[in-house]
Amino acid sequence: MTALERLIETLAKLPGLGRKSASRIAYYLLKADTSFVNGLSRELVQLKQKVRSCPVCGGYTEEVPCGICSDPQRDRTLLCVVEEPKDLLSIELTRQYRGLYHVLGGAISPIDGVGPDSLRIEPLRSRVKEEGFREVIIATNPTVEGDTTAVYVAGRLKDLPVSVTRLALGLPVGGDLEYADRLTLARALEGRRKLEQD
Amino acid sequence: MTALERLIETLAKLPGLGRKSASRIAYYLLKADTSFVNGLSRELVQLKQKVRSCPVCGGYTEEVPCGICSDPQRDRTLLCVVEEPKDLLSIELTRQYRGLYHVLGGAISPIDGVGPDSLRIEPLRSRVKEEGFREVIIATNPTVEGDTTAVYVAGRLKDLPVSVTRLALGLPVGGDLEYADRLTLARALEGRRKLEQD
Repeated sequence: MTALERLIETLAKLPGLGRKSASRIAYYLLKADTSFVNGLSRELVQLKQKVRSCPVCGGYTEEVPCGICSDPQRDRTLLCVVEEPKDLLSIELTRQYRGLYHVLGGAISPIDGVGPDSLRIEPLRSRVKEEGFREVIIATNPTVEGDTTAVYVAGRLKDLPVSVTRLALGLPVGGDLEYADRLTLARALEGRRKLEQD
Repeated sequence: MTALERLIETLAKLPGLGRKSASRIAYYLLKADTSFVNGLSRELVQLKQKVRSCPVCGGYTEEVPCGICSDPQRDRTLLCVVEEPKDLLSIELTRQYRGLYHVLGGAISPIDGVGPDSLRIEPLRSRVKEEGFREVIIATNPTVEGDTTAVYVAGRLKDLPVSVTRLALGLPVGGDLEYADRLTLARALEGRRKLEQD
């Protein structure tokens, strides 16, 4: 296999890219400046070298703890629980939320072998016990797995003195949080409602 | 800017990728194996190190001359003229053509400042004179620029003892050769017609 064919094959494995779009990118890179291509190559290596998980919230960061966890300006009585680090970014982009975050690392999905024990739910319980939050906003995806996870997480926090809410379903059901536009996501934050814990 | 933001910004410059798809790929890479990401990084560097233009046909290759130009099994009486190396690949994928190629390096486009002199038209004339082709198939894109280039190239070959044909317009007019499906492109090859040279 040639260098060109190898690169096309690797690019085609990335999400959202098929063989045609991968080959289009590869031919673009062949015509592009060597400095651009080498820069991209270096940035890929640095991504894995520099970016790690924040041990507190579980989000991606280059510093430990991350910029959000260590920011004295954030509201430390509010905690937003998301499935993935990319969801944290989506909520940050609304600029409507100034509290802290907790990344679960996924959603409960028996069909994929993801049970509650694979997620950062016990660390969440410990944080809620120790850090004295007033409210936990569950911002899992509006999918079967996200709903299941929300109900399970709410149950695990039931005995603690904290209000548990969930993002309003202004989000399209069955969709993915990552693709919501900022305004829809901002509306969902505004309209969050108390989760029944019986 | 963090390593993550830098990578997203660079990826968003690639053709077909916007900020959302670039950020989706970056988050995918954060979760992917380090060996996969380092492999992609290495393949990018190798692409620029190993791939060069064939001095004969102008296509991309790792060997000089390229595998097609040096293949004794190819029909050396047929020459197919294309705008870009990626067009050469599209025609190869039809598996209907067994002749040689000549890449012009673009199409005549006065608005973009691309005149006949910026293209490999004189080398084409030399090859036709020296290599004794029976037929030159002009496979430029079915666009204004491609049509102009086809007519110009045909004119430059008028005094030489060679038949000049053009791909049949089974291709959707105004489209791009790169996006034609293999069958449509194969039909266009079959139905190629003689170009008027007066």
